[in-house]
Amino acid sequence: MAKKARSPKMVYYFGKTKTEGGGKHKELLGGKGANLAEMTSIGLPVPPGFTITTEVCDLYYQNKRKLPKELMTSVKKSIATLEKELGKKFGDLKDPLLISVRSGAAISMPGMMNTILNLGLNDKSVQGLADATGKKRFAYDAYRRLINMYGDVVCGVDHKYFEEAFDKIKQKYRVKDDNDVPVEGMAQLCESYKKVYRRHFGKPFPQDPMGQLELAIEAVFRSWMQSRAVKYRQVENITGLLGTAVNVQSMVFGNMGEESGTGVAFTRDPATGQNKFYGEFLINAQGEDVVAGIRTPQPVEKLAKWNKQIYGQLLAIKDKLEAHYRDVQDIEFTIEHGKLFMLQTRNGKRTGAAAVKIACDMVKEKLITEKEAVARIPAGDLTQLLLPSFSPKAKATAKSSGKLLTVGLPASPGAAVGKLAFSASEAVERTSKGESVLLVRKETNPEDIDGMHSAAGILTSTGGMTSHAAVVARGWGRCCVAGAGNIEIHEKARKIKIGGKTFTHQDTLSLDGSTGEVMAGEITTQHPKLSGDFSKVMQWADKYRKLDVRTNADTPADAKRAREFGAQGIGLCRTEHMFFEGERIMAMREMILAGNEEDRKAALKKLLPVQRKDFTGIFTAMKGLPVTIRLLDPPLHEFLPHDERSQAEMASRLGVKRSEVKARVSALHEMNPMLGHRGCRLAVTYPEILTMQVTAITEAVIACKKKKIAAIAEIMIPLVGTATELQLLSEQVREVIAEVKAAKKVTGKLDILVGTMIEIPRAALTADEVGQYADFFSFGTNDLTQMTFGYSRDDINTFLPDYLAKEILLRDPFQSLDVTGVGQLVRMGVEKGRSVKKKLKCGICGEHGGDPDSIRFCHEVGLNYVSCSPFRVPIARLAAAQAALASGK
Amino acid sequence: MAKKARSPKMVYYFGKTKTEGGGKHKELLGGKGANLAEMTSIGLPVPPGFTITTEVCDLYYQNKRKLPKELMTSVKKSIATLEKELGKKFGDLKDPLLISVRSGAAISMPGMMNTILNLGLNDKSVQGLADATGKKRFAYDAYRRLINMYGDVVCGVDHKYFEEAFDKIKQKYRVKDDNDVPVEGMAQLCESYKKVYRRHFGKPFPQDPMGQLELAIEAVFRSWMQSRAVKYRQVENITGLLGTAVNVQSMVFGNMGEESGTGVAFTRDPATGQNKFYGEFLINAQGEDVVAGIRTPQPVEKLAKWNKQIYGQLLAIKDKLEAHYRDVQDIEFTIEHGKLFMLQTRNGKRTGAAAVKIACDMVKEKLITEKEAVARIPAGDLTQLLLPSFSPKAKATAKSSGKLLTVGLPASPGAAVGKLAFSASEAVERTSKGESVLLVRKETNPEDIDGMHSAAGILTSTGGMTSHAAVVARGWGRCCVAGAGNIEIHEKARKIKIGGKTFTHQDTLSLDGSTGEVMAGEITTQHPKLSGDFSKVMQWADKYRKLDVRTNADTPADAKRAREFGAQGIGLCRTEHMFFEGERIMAMREMILAGNEEDRKAALKKLLPVQRKDFTGIFTAMKGLPVTIRLLDPPLHEFLPHDERSQAEMASRLGVKRSEVKARVSALHEMNPMLGHRGCRLAVTYPEILTMQVTAITEAVIACKKKKIAAIAEIMIPLVGTATELQLLSEQVREVIAEVKAAKKVTGKLDILVGTMIEIPRAALTADEVGQYADFFSFGTNDLTQMTFGYSRDDINTFLPDYLAKEILLRDPFQSLDVTGVGQLVRMGVEKGRSVKKKLKCGICGEHGGDPDSIRFCHEVGLNYVSCSPFRVPIARLAAAQAALASGK
Repeated sequence: MAKKARSPKMVYYFGKTKTEGGGKHKELLGGKGANLAEMTSIGLPVPPGFTITTEVCDLYYQNKRKLPKELMTSVKKSIATLEKELGKKFGDLKDPLLISVRSGAAISMPGMMNTILNLGLNDKSVQGLADATGKKRFAYDAYRRLINMYGDVVCGVDHKYFEEAFDKIKQKYRVKDDNDVPVEGMAQLCESYKKVYRRHFGKPFPQDPMGQLELAIEAVFRSWMQSRAVKYRQVENITGLLGTAVNVQSMVFGNMGEESGTGVAFTRDPATGQNKFYGEFLINAQGEDVVAGIRTPQPVEKLAKWNKQIYGQLLAIKDKLEAHYRDVQDIEFTIEHGKLFMLQTRNGKRTGAAAVKIACDMVKEKLITEKEAVARIPAGDLTQLLLPSFSPKAKATAKSSGKLLTVGLPASPGAAVGKLAFSASEAVERTSKGESVLLVRKETNPEDIDGMHSAAGILTSTGGMTSHAAVVARGWGRCCVAGAGNIEIHEKARKIKIGGKTFTHQDTLSLDGSTGEVMAGEITTQHPKLSGDFSKVMQWADKYRKLDVRTNADTPADAKRAREFGAQGIGLCRTEHMFFEGERIMAMREMILAGNEEDRKAALKKLLPVQRKDFTGIFTAMKGLPVTIRLLDPPLHEFLPHDERSQAEMASRLGVKRSEVKARVSALHEMNPMLGHRGCRLAVTYPEILTMQVTAITEAVIACKKKKIAAIAEIMIPLVGTATELQLLSEQVREVIAEVKAAKKVTGKLDILVGTMIEIPRAALTADEVGQYADFFSFGTNDLTQMTFGYSRDDINTFLPDYLAKEILLRDPFQSLDVTGVGQLVRMGVEKGRSVKKKLKCGICGEHGGDPDSIRFCHEVGLNYVSCSPFRVPIARLAAAQAALASGK
Repeated sequence: MAKKARSPKMVYYFGKTKTEGGGKHKELLGGKGANLAEMTSIGLPVPPGFTITTEVCDLYYQNKRKLPKELMTSVKKSIATLEKELGKKFGDLKDPLLISVRSGAAISMPGMMNTILNLGLNDKSVQGLADATGKKRFAYDAYRRLINMYGDVVCGVDHKYFEEAFDKIKQKYRVKDDNDVPVEGMAQLCESYKKVYRRHFGKPFPQDPMGQLELAIEAVFRSWMQSRAVKYRQVENITGLLGTAVNVQSMVFGNMGEESGTGVAFTRDPATGQNKFYGEFLINAQGEDVVAGIRTPQPVEKLAKWNKQIYGQLLAIKDKLEAHYRDVQDIEFTIEHGKLFMLQTRNGKRTGAAAVKIACDMVKEKLITEKEAVARIPAGDLTQLLLPSFSPKAKATAKSSGKLLTVGLPASPGAAVGKLAFSASEAVERTSKGESVLLVRKETNPEDIDGMHSAAGILTSTGGMTSHAAVVARGWGRCCVAGAGNIEIHEKARKIKIGGKTFTHQDTLSLDGSTGEVMAGEITTQHPKLSGDFSKVMQWADKYRKLDVRTNADTPADAKRAREFGAQGIGLCRTEHMFFEGERIMAMREMILAGNEEDRKAALKKLLPVQRKDFTGIFTAMKGLPVTIRLLDPPLHEFLPHDERSQAEMASRLGVKRSEVKARVSALHEMNPMLGHRGCRLAVTYPEILTMQVTAITEAVIACKKKKIAAIAEIMIPLVGTATELQLLSEQVREVIAEVKAAKKVTGKLDILVGTMIEIPRAALTADEVGQYADFFSFGTNDLTQMTFGYSRDDINTFLPDYLAKEILLRDPFQSLDVTGVGQLVRMGVEKGRSVKKKLKCGICGEHGGDPDSIRFCHEVGLNYVSCSPFRVPIARLAAAQAALASGK
């Protein structure tokens, strides 16, 4: 780590007196701190305060979790400035200055970091606050919240003990709702809370405000490394941050009565992108109440009725913020006694659809340029636009037959179908076993991150559009229905009740995240139709990108869909799937069982016409676009049945002894099939398989040619590790092509290239030799990753979770290309290949071809194309454009 | 391939008229041709002739197996020269010039290529020859040999048909031996042979001598690519040759009567190296009769009695040749009517022991220098010196109890014990199943190469010390007893009879290749004592080599033996084997079965003292030399029983349910264990295993220190693929060391380094990152080869034979390091590692560490040491010296 200069500036003030930071200091002050300073600078009403830098957090960890000595001196100076500006004293017994302590890293992590409000209160000043505000109940409510949050966050006292104490008070006063507890109950509650605190923490609740502050600062820093924060950074792939900043800000209160309130809002609709002020507020409440989703808030438009002036002021601020930040803002505000305060602004998270619409609108509004629009849409989020929705007909039928159970808030769009899971761990476990599940929770919290990530959809019974569940789900494009208040959740019994009907963990529901509808049973889903804005963004992307985008498709139907999504060819057409259909598998098995070349050839003869038909279909669908066909790749044992019954069936079908089938299966067993007899190794030992496939391809090309269909074939030889393999096999391929041409009396040139997959480390290392025999390279980064890391994809889950948790790996290398290691081989492969063939066509056909980060790398190393699943083609087009714009080449 | 100038010189003459080539033209004229020219030049009596170059062979294959047009013109010119020199006409009907046609590549391949003798005879000239020599029987014998060889070699008529015809003639004359067939029988035989030829080839035997010659030349070229020749080149790793030359030489006849004869000899004893003329001869025979081992010849010394002058002439030639070639020569000679002719000379193949003795003797004799001596001994052949022999006591006991069955010729030294195999394919098959077998054959032929290579030893009932079996076996250092004439072999019945006793394929025999003894049952073998010459060669080697040589050893006994062989440390001490002994495996299984860290720790606690004892033993054996200890590497399932019975046993021993054991075994099952949860991945998920092992190592070092034993430990973390893994684990290792030191109150520095194995491609690619946390690198080239090629060592046999046969691979990459691919990663690993740590210690601990070719590469890339099995340490020392001498650095 770079050495830090001694005593950097640790605290940045914002307020009328002075504002030391600004929007450009996100790394140092965190997003929240930088924006508080920025808002202050542009004249918005922000309660003054100061920010302790992320560098201090880093020092704290470098210093074995101790705050730097000088810190509190700076903090005290800033507190003094604050006191002067507001005319109140921190720790004053009569009219105390209260503060909040909030975390805030450079990248927003909603709900991840701990917050403490009302800091500065103690047994004496709570009385002063009551006197000064004339609101005793408010004062004790503030104090009990402080004790609760402080106990929980700073001292690790479980929140449930406080809840129990609260329940007792409520029982005592026979009330159900928190707000119905009378003033004296609140005062008693403070006493109970202090006892809870003392019993579980071992010391009395601290009465010294500055001591409270110091420990609170430390608690924020500590929370940076707690497991849920670490996990969130993993999931979101957030790395390279120094730590969190700490924002200390003077309190304003939305819970001072009916003229007070609090709210959160987006400057545009984050779900659809529509340009309208969008949000929620609660009267007489603190901000945490909205975010936590405990009470169900009102839409922000209703503010107009409640306080027209404030609403107008907010609309003006909305415009000012958008013009200033040139992006959608997600704001928090509080109204104290009819006075508006801004507590936060940040770029608003939005769905993929919203991102597209907002970008297009902002270009129209001349707020941003076309290039900025392209650069700004998170490519991965396009998934959401391409997500299935329910078939309207199927849905209408379902609804008319009484399947609609309830309507919650449309928190995150999409359609999800699954069985019910009642805890995050259950969702993770059942998903890993292949089930599609919906995570059902009263409300979600950061501990649920895992389960939310694995579930097909999320359903909550409380909480609004900006609740934890909603924000997180939208960020991931996960379908979510929130605040479905009609649902009674019985977690332990693993069932829910809706309108008298009961559903258990065995039952399937369907969620519509775009309407909030919750329906019984499984409703058919359909592919989305894409909007005009989407097309526009794709056009812009195509204008700027340098990489071609192809697709991985094995059937004419997939090929057609991919073409509609803009695929410029097929980068990987696997032929093995073709052998599983109907009768083909029997011919394949006959071939495998054959004891000699002659019998193998006889069996292959049966496969030739069906293969030819397959290829003709695909060439027809991709007319005029190249189709890369990979020759047979998997080990032969994959085509044989492994259970007794199927083996017996196969034996009787083929008229051989069971023992013969069994013997062959056992002979084909391998210790490490990944590294065994497959890929081009099959073609070396059974050249007749290659001959059959190449014959089928060539005949299909010729058949298309006769029908005036421009078939362009690229024959790809898989798993090549040595130049001699490719030399031998490419010669064989070319000979077969020549023979078929001669047999069919075709004289003109056919559009057939012969190339190879680079998926074995040795092939990349010797690409200058291999390249001599290849018309093209296609990097098979799945296998390349397996061999470069020595990770079996099928077995990696035995250790990957530990590797991610210990940050040995920051991401699953099968999801995002390991640029440092595997990428080195890709780069070497391209450079060495082109050292012998300057214009060698290079592409990638591993699953990384649809991952935006990996696509950036592909652009950088100068590949000609990426290939990915049909569904990810638009993502790849956009990511390719972003890569080109970012690199400037 | 480089373009050839048009019409190169195709034919090189040797004789009194002119001699166009010489010893330096081996590449062009083949070894035989170059030496014939060379011998002619230095005045030895060589029958004149000419050599067609290897370039012509290459042209033949380039030209789709057609002889270049210009060839026969040149051949005819040379024939004319020959006719002039000898005063005879080729094809003359009265006194025809007869010639031999022999193959000869740059590298000698005994028995591999086809030979045709007596070429130029036809129905008419055979009579002329009879008249000219006055030996009708001789003339018809020569003709029938021509028809037989020509039919077999040129036209593919199976030899057995000729044998059948011969048998009929012998039956007709009621004789047993070929030589007893009378003259008229021989003439009839020629007629029968011509019929056989015509029946099986479809055309009559050609009567035009020049036509015979042209087809014979082509047959020699053709034989270059026949499978047994290809196979021999594979086994011997002979690559890069253009092809074979063709030697056309005037015939001389050793079968002209009792004053004629033929022989083969070595200028020194090729088995022991003793400086005495060594060989065999047959009176009235052709050269092929000696080599083929059909008749049992007499020792060459007996020539002195038979013809003292000739013997004296031969001894003079022996000295002249050794002085000229400065090496042992293997010669063929023929005596025609009391006149000596030299037919061949070449460097003599010798056993490892002979190579050592000859090299030392020649240094003493000032024939060669010390460096030449070191460079000349094939390092791999030292194996033979280190081969076990029979324990004299066990052998004496066996012999005194009547186990000695017979004594054959001591054809190739060593001791071999095995069951009997009666065909090459049987030997290959049973060996591959793990049996030790002896290949028993009447005589061996080139088709048996495979079986000879896999058998533990070879036993033949006919043939001499220079028979095919003997020559090939010595070349490989395979134990061989030849010409054991008392043995009756019943191939079909799979049994042999010796002196009334019968042994089947189920019975075990013991062969002593140094004495020729054949003994019943298994006799204990022992390790050899090394000669003074051996020590001298090792001293020379140590003087010139730059690489250190370490050993792979897991036990104090192995460590001790390796030290005796000159190992300078342990390069790989595997710890997993230590867990299989006795009670340990139960503790290990308990650990694996444990459901949590605490229980694992409890089980590991039982292993700690035994591990400590293991290490103390090894440190004591290697006192003062470094010991590289690899932490636990294999996947845990390897420690669990996989059959029902053992699982039940384990369950009852550990007091758990069977189902629990079964469940754990099944949970640990992996699709590709090679790429699964093993190596340092175990340490990441179960840090307590690493802690136990490092504690044991550190405590052992401290215990040794207290006993004044200088223990030097190098802790090696296996299977590292990312720098972060090594960072995390090396920190843990260093912490454990510090804790143990603190607990034991040791303050001084301990000799413990912490390094890693580079065996995953990614580790080599990122060695500049990995190197930051390593004190040393050890290249694990076994796994590195597996992952770089994508070859599972356990499964490679499914395709390797085809890969070798098709020359996709020239050698098994697990036997000899693939310099092009895997070597690139090794080089990268060394260079990148040293870019961050200039003096980073680098070694190799894969099995390549004992392979001379791989050692040369290790020297070139600047490794500090190689490590190999104890047995191969001397080989590595010599190979390292040869590498240093060859590279001149």
